Amino acid sequence: MTVPASTRPYNFSAGPAAIPEEVLRLAAAEMLDWHGSGMSVMEMSHRGKEFISIYEQAEADLRELLAVPAHFRILFMQGGGLAENAIVPLNLSRGAGADFVVTGSWSQKSFKEAQKYCPARIAASTQADGHTTLPDPASWRLERQTAYVHICSNETIHGVEFQALPDLKTLGCDAPLVIDFSSHVASRPVDWSRVGLAFGGAQKNLGPAGVTLVVVREDLLGHALPACPSAFDYQTVADNRSMYNTPPTWAIYIAGLTFQWLKKQGGTLAMEQRNIAKARLLYDFIDQSQFYVNKVVPSCRSRMNVPFFLRDESRSEAFLAGANERGLLQLKGHKSVGGMRASIYNAMPLAGVQALVSYLAEFEKFQS
Amino acid sequence: MTVPASTRPYNFSAGPAAIPEEVLRLAAAEMLDWHGSGMSVMEMSHRGKEFISIYEQAEADLRELLAVPAHFRILFMQGGGLAENAIVPLNLSRGAGADFVVTGSWSQKSFKEAQKYCPARIAASTQADGHTTLPDPASWRLERQTAYVHICSNETIHGVEFQALPDLKTLGCDAPLVIDFSSHVASRPVDWSRVGLAFGGAQKNLGPAGVTLVVVREDLLGHALPACPSAFDYQTVADNRSMYNTPPTWAIYIAGLTFQWLKKQGGTLAMEQRNIAKARLLYDFIDQSQFYVNKVVPSCRSRMNVPFFLRDESRSEAFLAGANERGLLQLKGHKSVGGMRASIYNAMPLAGVQALVSYLAEFEKFQS
Repeated sequence: MTVPASTRPYNFSAGPAAIPEEVLRLAAAEMLDWHGSGMSVMEMSHRGKEFISIYEQAEADLRELLAVPAHFRILFMQGGGLAENAIVPLNLSRGAGADFVVTGSWSQKSFKEAQKYCPARIAASTQADGHTTLPDPASWRLERQTAYVHICSNETIHGVEFQALPDLKTLGCDAPLVIDFSSHVASRPVDWSRVGLAFGGAQKNLGPAGVTLVVVREDLLGHALPACPSAFDYQTVADNRSMYNTPPTWAIYIAGLTFQWLKKQGGTLAMEQRNIAKARLLYDFIDQSQFYVNKVVPSCRSRMNVPFFLRDESRSEAFLAGANERGLLQLKGHKSVGGMRASIYNAMPLAGVQALVSYLAEFEKFQS
Repeated sequence: MTVPASTRPYNFSAGPAAIPEEVLRLAAAEMLDWHGSGMSVMEMSHRGKEFISIYEQAEADLRELLAVPAHFRILFMQGGGLAENAIVPLNLSRGAGADFVVTGSWSQKSFKEAQKYCPARIAASTQADGHTTLPDPASWRLERQTAYVHICSNETIHGVEFQALPDLKTLGCDAPLVIDFSSHVASRPVDWSRVGLAFGGAQKNLGPAGVTLVVVREDLLGHALPACPSAFDYQTVADNRSMYNTPPTWAIYIAGLTFQWLKKQGGTLAMEQRNIAKARLLYDFIDQSQFYVNKVVPSCRSRMNVPFFLRDESRSEAFLAGANERGLLQLKGHKSVGGMRASIYNAMPLAGVQALVSYLAEFEKFQS
């Protein structure tokens, strides 16, 4: 441990992203001998009592944290959101079509991949405004026979977030809502009464890359297309408690430690309050500045991913170099949109956002 | 670190399995700050220079260790061997059939899964003798138009191992040979002139669960069926250097540290000599004993996975309890075959096998 706690830099990576320092310290301490077992978690058979206990604790903690109802199953899978873009239609389309609400890069990718497996349709899109808004659900063109409706509830790249999930029933649609909640899972409560299936890679708010969380209503299991690989058939995964194939044991362990950390912080509701405060601090500063700009309509802005631009982009390299010098890491924006991006997930403390805002102010002053 | 080096138990798990202690200690030491970056490897963007350097080093080291020729691509994927059972036919079958040599549980699973995607045929099987032998390649019934021929070059559960890979050309077959080498990769050299594609989960000889190694000849890329998920299209994975979706960064890092450890041990040829010595010690003891038995024909025995039975199975529980007391862990056999299994992968030192043999002798003496 070469870096003392007080000097650890703040990591604004969009994912893989910051992990709570307590989790990292515990993982290091337990590396050679987990709870007197004589084994690292990485060395345990996934079918042994030690790992089973880690798995069961993680599942129970996650169910509690996200208030997942009993008629939903929790699956730990592999392949990330991009694999789920295929796995969802393979499991849910049942030969029918599916409707997609395209609000940024991630829902666009989901739409494109689903076309391999079913007639996929765009029910609404914000492409025309550069994905700076969210479309009113009342305007969505949903097919009567659609197998499911897909949204990305937080767009990591474009920085837009649904502040409430749509209630499809009020739109006259009985199909299940599928949400890709990769980049804001556990940052706010989920209204499960509106959701059929939620999926997300862990590498933003829940732990390391390599494990994908799927929360699925039980009645949606058991309908996979014949082309669905067995390892990605939700029914098979559920029947085998995510151990049909060898699960990514280390990633599940770290996610489990993160769940315990989240519980100690007060759970999802407490995290939501902190995330609101963090996001407000950052957006308020950007909005009053003449130097920085965020283009997303305020009511649609993500609490997790804050893309912003220097109005004079020629200063971007100097901005990033100065940030690195101050221990404000990984602020460069996604290559597809450019600019900067501050991802301020659960593991980012308010102090990290304060440090960023101080730097924003100082850099602006110095450059003016 | 509660367990000093000298008292660490020996872990005979079939997978996830023992990892070299040096690797674990380094991973613990670097947990909060990898090489002065201020980040854990788990916190790094996979597109940042830090992780790219880890990735490139791991790939180069693996290419050197396994002497992978330049016209093969190395892919780091997710889903393990069970997912590859679908991914291989999705990528390689091209609308034709494939031939399977069934020598145990794993090749049987591969055959069964491939039937979803192509006409899969059994070219040879050792089911009749309980998978205690290997079939002579000259007897294999290969179809002239087969897309590929699949073998499991080491059967983890049944403990049989191909001591040489078949040369399909001498059998009049031009199709590529696919080998599932999950449980003996890097324990011996690979004759790449006989191989079209090799795949394996890392969690036996190479590192933790959660990353799957695929080594594929370049001319086999680019032929995926339309139903193949983009994240599992070898061409897409190769074009994106295994970063089409977020890779399992931690698992790749630990695998990379393991590759460096293997190089320090003298590489694959040196490991092979040690593995021969370890296996000989254990099999020789079992064969001279009246108390234990291994049913596999000696010329077909695996150097990595040694299943054995107590002739009086009523003593199995006492055997396992005594083993645990002595720090000889995870010796219980796979539920599908019963008995015991000692997996003695690269990370198991000769001293561990010596300790096991001492215990075998002592238990036999005590029970007689």
